[in-house]
Amino acid sequence: MSALVLHEYAPSGNCYKIRLTAAHLGIPLERRNYDILKGETRTAAFLGQVNANGRIPVLQIGPDDFLPESNAACFYLADGSDLIPHDRFERADMLRWLFWEQYNHEPNVATVRFWKGWVGFENLSDVQRANLPGKQEAGAAALALMDEHLERRDWFVIDRLTLADIALYAYTHVAEEGGFSLTPYPAVRAWLDRVAALPRHIPITA
Amino acid sequence: MSALVLHEYAPSGNCYKIRLTAAHLGIPLERRNYDILKGETRTAAFLGQVNANGRIPVLQIGPDDFLPESNAACFYLADGSDLIPHDRFERADMLRWLFWEQYNHEPNVATVRFWKGWVGFENLSDVQRANLPGKQEAGAAALALMDEHLERRDWFVIDRLTLADIALYAYTHVAEEGGFSLTPYPAVRAWLDRVAALPRHIPITA
Repeated sequence: MSALVLHEYAPSGNCYKIRLTAAHLGIPLERRNYDILKGETRTAAFLGQVNANGRIPVLQIGPDDFLPESNAACFYLADGSDLIPHDRFERADMLRWLFWEQYNHEPNVATVRFWKGWVGFENLSDVQRANLPGKQEAGAAALALMDEHLERRDWFVIDRLTLADIALYAYTHVAEEGGFSLTPYPAVRAWLDRVAALPRHIPITA
Repeated sequence: MSALVLHEYAPSGNCYKIRLTAAHLGIPLERRNYDILKGETRTAAFLGQVNANGRIPVLQIGPDDFLPESNAACFYLADGSDLIPHDRFERADMLRWLFWEQYNHEPNVATVRFWKGWVGFENLSDVQRANLPGKQEAGAAALALMDEHLERRDWFVIDRLTLADIALYAYTHVAEEGGFSLTPYPAVRAWLDRVAALPRHIPITA
């Protein structure tokens, strides 16, 4: 593999997931930055060539091969490695957490962080304002579910790091930037420390 | 494999996906129904044993092995079969569509269908009402993106049915129950016909 290009917006947890996966695997990534606040992923060129869905991250594998969706890009990088369980049930169970992350965690924890840290609460639309309490509640419920799961385990799926831990780490470790407190979730905090202590770990700012 | 149990609510497209995958693979499923409108997936027994997230579908693999998240359950069933591409990029590209389905399609097309057909527009909460126009618009955008993609292809990822087609078929073929018109999307309609014409196809009501 060579010349992999990550089309990204660096502070996005979805983009960080891919960089963190690549770091654990020792795969170099060329990085191309887009300012999502300036609409740089909604240009005709981006929509036509990189991703018709107008979103980052997109992992570019070759001249014409583009892979949107953060967790699919992580799976591509990790395919065949120990970051994906080799047992059939455990592999599907890892995917379960990746889907759960995108459905129950990211739309709440990441969205509230984005609204607070980038858009600004004072600039939210009426619909966003109406959704805020529900997203705060659902984000806290997601963190509580993680905490309960981690009470009995060191890692999400098997006895070592997998993509499930990487994907969930990305927005959980910055949840306080969205106003979520991690104080009520000691098992989550201990797991965050375990992830960050791994030899090849890189921070979101790297 | 034997004694697989699908914990489900039959009219849910997420549950249908799993039945459709199993039908294509010739895998028998024992089915256990829960009335989500009566809160049967929020009981202490369900939350404690089947899924702490309080949602169906859940595919039960063994006495203590439960697999939530529809697309993860489909992946478990299809792992190693031709429903999942054998090429690394194509496999990740299939997952891309599965993640896109859960992030961009299901929360819009399926949710509006559920609100219209099960909850009733007149019973929506204020927050749901505030979200309705955005979900209608995002659902139509998802259908338009599918149509553009299918203009140049018969199937979503490779030259035959994969889990991407099954997952996207589930709620697309009943989108009109949510008030979405499929008339503007001829490539989607032709693809729906191709999926339904496959030898082992079963309808959502089966």
